[in-house]
Amino acid sequence: MDPISYTPIGIVHTPFTTPVGMPVQSVAAAGVAGTIELDPQWEEGLKDLETFSHLVLLTHLHQVTSYSLEVVPFLDDRPHGIFATRSPRRPNPIGLSIVRLVRIAGCTLHVEDVDLVDGTPLLDIKPFVPALDNRETERIGWFADRLDRLQSVRAYE
Amino acid sequence: MDPISYTPIGIVHTPFTTPVGMPVQSVAAAGVAGTIELDPQWEEGLKDLETFSHLVLLTHLHQVTSYSLEVVPFLDDRPHGIFATRSPRRPNPIGLSIVRLVRIAGCTLHVEDVDLVDGTPLLDIKPFVPALDNRETERIGWFADRLDRLQSVRAYE
Repeated sequence: MDPISYTPIGIVHTPFTTPVGMPVQSVAAAGVAGTIELDPQWEEGLKDLETFSHLVLLTHLHQVTSYSLEVVPFLDDRPHGIFATRSPRRPNPIGLSIVRLVRIAGCTLHVEDVDLVDGTPLLDIKPFVPALDNRETERIGWFADRLDRLQSVRAYE
Repeated sequence: MDPISYTPIGIVHTPFTTPVGMPVQSVAAAGVAGTIELDPQWEEGLKDLETFSHLVLLTHLHQVTSYSLEVVPFLDDRPHGIFATRSPRRPNPIGLSIVRLVRIAGCTLHVEDVDLVDGTPLLDIKPFVPALDNRETERIGWFADRLDRLQSVRAYE
């Protein structure tokens, strides 16, 4: 299949200079503040965004240099197929973070609940809307036994 | 900023040969059946995925040929900044769909709630986990007045 090329629309700045020790999901990063520096060419696209409290960020997890089809995820001690985990070591390392929008000043978005390394390239911003994005599920696989670790586990090498 | 290149991991097959008339979100496509044909080189990555009821699909919206920084989204009749909408006409047209997993047979995933055009390239599959992915929000901008249209509005050119 032909490769697809995307140009980042901005950069995410965070307190984390390395993935080691980071929260493993945005829901485990409550209050962690960061900024998004949007490339000024896209500023017009931010119109009305300040009327949303939460955003979906799609990012390129640039520090991921290799993938693995079977991984032991941070939250577990058993191996699973990569697509059954949220591990960053995926064939296409696209991150999905849900962050709280604090305010927008020009091309700078102040956000909270950031689970990303400083300097992460941003691919897209979408408004988070519960009626579109929330689901009730019947089965959550291995997570069912491991969610109690979510707030305490941190990423490691 | 340097472009980033991803190779699709598979193709999504759906009943929709054109975006015109499609549901505008997966939550408005209840029961619409589709299949994912994963490239066999990634099959090992599916291990344990069948124990999840819902999946996040990140896709390349290949029929989008241009972007617009201000759009009138399908659900509204007023213009908004592209990042304050879920319109496909984005600088990087990456789709986020939440689908129901019915069953997996080899490299074929049978899914429901599909809001994608037949032949859409697939970039990533993540397991949907409410404790990670659901949020309560304070503000949903213009959607607050327009969600009543969600199940009836269909995409147009």
